[in-house]
Amino acid sequence: MKRTLFFILMLAAWTASAQQRNPVVPSFTGAVEDFKPNVTNQLGHQYPMVNSQGAVRAQLRAPQAQAVQLDIAGKRYEMTKDENGVWTGTSDPQDVGFHYYQLNVDGASVPDPGSIYFFGAGRWGSGIEIPSADMDFWQVKNVPQGVIEERYYWSKATESMRHCYVYLPAEYQKNTNKKYPVLYLQHGNAENEQGWSAQGHTGQILDNLVAEGKAVPFIVVMDYGQGQNIHLTGEYAKQVPAPEPGRRAGNDNFQVVLLTDIIPMVEKEYRVIADAQHRAMAGLSMGGGQTRRITLANPTTFAYVGMFSGGVMSVEDIQGAAGFQKTNKVVFMSSGSKENPRVMEAAENLKKIGINAVGYVSEGTAHEWHTWRRSLYQFAQLLFK
Amino acid sequence: MKRTLFFILMLAAWTASAQQRNPVVPSFTGAVEDFKPNVTNQLGHQYPMVNSQGAVRAQLRAPQAQAVQLDIAGKRYEMTKDENGVWTGTSDPQDVGFHYYQLNVDGASVPDPGSIYFFGAGRWGSGIEIPSADMDFWQVKNVPQGVIEERYYWSKATESMRHCYVYLPAEYQKNTNKKYPVLYLQHGNAENEQGWSAQGHTGQILDNLVAEGKAVPFIVVMDYGQGQNIHLTGEYAKQVPAPEPGRRAGNDNFQVVLLTDIIPMVEKEYRVIADAQHRAMAGLSMGGGQTRRITLANPTTFAYVGMFSGGVMSVEDIQGAAGFQKTNKVVFMSSGSKENPRVMEAAENLKKIGINAVGYVSEGTAHEWHTWRRSLYQFAQLLFK
Repeated sequence: MKRTLFFILMLAAWTASAQQRNPVVPSFTGAVEDFKPNVTNQLGHQYPMVNSQGAVRAQLRAPQAQAVQLDIAGKRYEMTKDENGVWTGTSDPQDVGFHYYQLNVDGASVPDPGSIYFFGAGRWGSGIEIPSADMDFWQVKNVPQGVIEERYYWSKATESMRHCYVYLPAEYQKNTNKKYPVLYLQHGNAENEQGWSAQGHTGQILDNLVAEGKAVPFIVVMDYGQGQNIHLTGEYAKQVPAPEPGRRAGNDNFQVVLLTDIIPMVEKEYRVIADAQHRAMAGLSMGGGQTRRITLANPTTFAYVGMFSGGVMSVEDIQGAAGFQKTNKVVFMSSGSKENPRVMEAAENLKKIGINAVGYVSEGTAHEWHTWRRSLYQFAQLLFK
Repeated sequence: MKRTLFFILMLAAWTASAQQRNPVVPSFTGAVEDFKPNVTNQLGHQYPMVNSQGAVRAQLRAPQAQAVQLDIAGKRYEMTKDENGVWTGTSDPQDVGFHYYQLNVDGASVPDPGSIYFFGAGRWGSGIEIPSADMDFWQVKNVPQGVIEERYYWSKATESMRHCYVYLPAEYQKNTNKKYPVLYLQHGNAENEQGWSAQGHTGQILDNLVAEGKAVPFIVVMDYGQGQNIHLTGEYAKQVPAPEPGRRAGNDNFQVVLLTDIIPMVEKEYRVIADAQHRAMAGLSMGGGQTRRITLANPTTFAYVGMFSGGVMSVEDIQGAAGFQKTNKVVFMSSGSKENPRVMEAAENLKKIGINAVGYVSEGTAHEWHTWRRSLYQFAQLLFK
């Protein structure tokens, strides 16, 4: 309860500071007038729209409002009212890929009623997709379709029912004598277990890769990893490693749940090859950091490691984790080109000691979902071969 | 494209008229001050709250707004601003169960940023749960858990990928030689294929019933049935029955997709007993009307028929549908007690000709989700026995 209150206060402070942090700027005036309704719009809604420059145009009917703004990527763009009380505003061009945004109406931060909603930035709210030249790889296509299962399960470590999503490849229900490898795939800070399927399009990325023969079929488990909201009980609370310097307490609670509850549940409920050579872990941002810490702390548990915009692993990290190198098949480290990445250099360093390290830089993207979709697309092709 | 435009205009007209229709009324002043955060709140949010009378209290920070209202069940309740720019307002007591609602900020209708979002009333938006004395039956419990699968599949009738949810009972993955019966379960007007799992809690209702031995395990298929948005192509467009007097064109497009695409897909992808005695159809409101028309038009295809707040079937209906009575095992008709139900009388009439008809009235509820959850709970216990 104390922790819940702490989280509420943190969230309130963070939300308030985000509002003050984001400056109000004029609507973008250099827009090419080829705006189209976005793919993430609610059915029948024309707005929001995106143009060929990647600028976002939002619209909201608010006849009595004094000021309405489009709040995206750290700026609040002024919207202007027409004679019907409809406000319209346009953002600067955005990076390709997926972005969270909201509207501000006379000081109220609210979701755009034109958009469908995603969980990110600590809230359920609006998202928008800036088309990219390579977006084909995550589209729904008429290829053999896997499924995303929504599942509740009992957690001993928290004494509560937890909730996860599990991707099963198309052939899973047909080959009932075959067992499959598993990737444990984690979201970032202030996101949740739905992010990888909804924003990440994990199902489509893997269905398409398998259909093209570029990836082997495997299971993906997507669970909730926000440590401060994972409340360990009894002896399990004592298993948490001491936080690294500068890290929040609670950050590593996910490790206990993963090892105590999630992996055993998956290996009981699904036809899984339950050994390190058929077990991978990856994550984006905070989830990449969790992947680094968990795979180093359990060096003979996962043969494949992926860190997407989630830092790097050093030679010292690996040499300090007995058995890691002997178990490991791939260390994959990626980031967006706009993130000041060290991943290529880090991969070169690991190769020198004989690690099969792969660096990947997502061109033209920052710390956002298109970087991570591309990272999954690359990483998936390296797994379980 | 014409149809899409038509739908957009219809939706715009409907939304505008709904706003004019809902009168602005004062905030409820008789509230007992035992408000609690709602179960459908976003993580860490205190508001909206509900009290023991079923009154809803919403709150929104909007320092510069002139007027903020809580818009629920046909009324807009005035909210009032405190010195911090935070608006608060309270609705009259609501019926138990689930209700869609929104906030209005200076004329803008927007989702409440405190709530998680559901698709209903033609939009993704806020929902709230008024606790009921019998809500235990749809809670997540530590019993063997089924899963809800999200699946895309190719539709010949629309030449597009369609999207559905499929509930599989807990034992499905264990008993890989066993085949299962199937219930096709449809949402209401202006809702979608997610309604039965999200608002309806189908997974929990069935897991709990199976765990208690009150229902046999069966598969549930939840697909999208809003006819005007189902665009049949080529020969399939010609298969649509002529609309009944007073019904919209397009209303019966779902029938073509169900028979052409959905049932064949389910019987191919899942271990299904593919005969009428192991096939049920039910739906709520519009979905109940679809169930009536589709099961009468295909009288030897479904042995079990459920209409939840979706009208009734008459003796003449059944006598006009050759083979229906011989095939049928149960005709279930339900409604909320506040809906002026004819279901009990209709069931009595059908019993006189030898139909195993069951009427059910949900006490204290209207045309809303709690009526339909209770209806599913009752209907599921009658199936495939």
